[in-house]
Amino acid sequence: MSRSATSQDRRADARQNVEKILDAAITCLSRNADASVSEIAQAAGVGRVTLYGHFPTRDALIEAALVRVISEGEAVLESLDLAGDPRRALRVLIESSWLLIARASAVLVAAQTALPPGRIHQLHAEPAQRVDELIRRGQTEGAFRDDLPATWLTSVLHHLLKGAALDVANGLLEQADAPRLISETVLAAYTRGDT
Amino acid sequence: MSRSATSQDRRADARQNVEKILDAAITCLSRNADASVSEIAQAAGVGRVTLYGHFPTRDALIEAALVRVISEGEAVLESLDLAGDPRRALRVLIESSWLLIARASAVLVAAQTALPPGRIHQLHAEPAQRVDELIRRGQTEGAFRDDLPATWLTSVLHHLLKGAALDVANGLLEQADAPRLISETVLAAYTRGDT
Repeated sequence: MSRSATSQDRRADARQNVEKILDAAITCLSRNADASVSEIAQAAGVGRVTLYGHFPTRDALIEAALVRVISEGEAVLESLDLAGDPRRALRVLIESSWLLIARASAVLVAAQTALPPGRIHQLHAEPAQRVDELIRRGQTEGAFRDDLPATWLTSVLHHLLKGAALDVANGLLEQADAPRLISETVLAAYTRGDT
Repeated sequence: MSRSATSQDRRADARQNVEKILDAAITCLSRNADASVSEIAQAAGVGRVTLYGHFPTRDALIEAALVRVISEGEAVLESLDLAGDPRRALRVLIESSWLLIARASAVLVAAQTALPPGRIHQLHAEPAQRVDELIRRGQTEGAFRDDLPATWLTSVLHHLLKGAALDVANGLLEQADAPRLISETVLAAYTRGDT
């Protein structure tokens, strides 16, 4: 019996294909929220039949990509110490996780048309809450402005993370510069001006 | 001869259809950059045959929508006095034109896959330059921070305008609140913090 025919090897191949497909899905959906299954299969270097063997529908693939990207983001967020000075915590949060959050946002956009709203909310609730808590704590402690609603401050962070990721994808911004530009901008935006 | 059959009436009908189609295209593309011609025809309340009679391809329709939305934006920008204090000028710019700029941005995203890059740049150059000039003048006069590049400050404005328009479309933000939140945020973001 040839080595490649053992069931252990077949399982390892399958796992590797799933990894490749999910990576490709996240990359393709970040560029275009309407990326097709064929595009994703091509980017992953697998056939459409192989892809459909693992993910019977485009919606199932998008859901799996969202679960993957959120769990990556959670792992990064969990490793961070967000206690203490909220401005320092926000900077740490942005600089450690900006690309992951941007990837998650892009997949979320795709998921908005593919998955029921309840499911997205459920998957997205925990990381969103962590950011939300930091912003509210910063407002309470006087580190962040409280003349604008916390929900808007959260949106500002998301829009700038997503926008910067798009700028990098379009060659308008160096990836290495992005974390610093985002944190300098968000921290200033969260400070009440004298305007 | 019935009144509706005169060629003058037919021309008025055609003009009205073109208006309806372009309005529908801008609205549909703002929600989804990949909106199909059928969706746009339906939103305009005209048949696909009528639509194709005016715009032979989806690309032609997107180009016409972009020309329309940019000329609307230019008319608004031209009516503004952007001389004098750059911070006041930026606030006037945002509050008078935020929805138009957001509409233009959404159509620009759609145009990015449909039109050759040179054409977009050409159409978009004049209004983009007006904003860019204001930001550079503000930096030179010390009204805006100069520790971050002008190109990034311009991006920040675009991302927040576009993001706020998306928030309004998704029911996360009241349209009436948007201009104030955007200007307060952008003016603070353009101010160097002590962080």
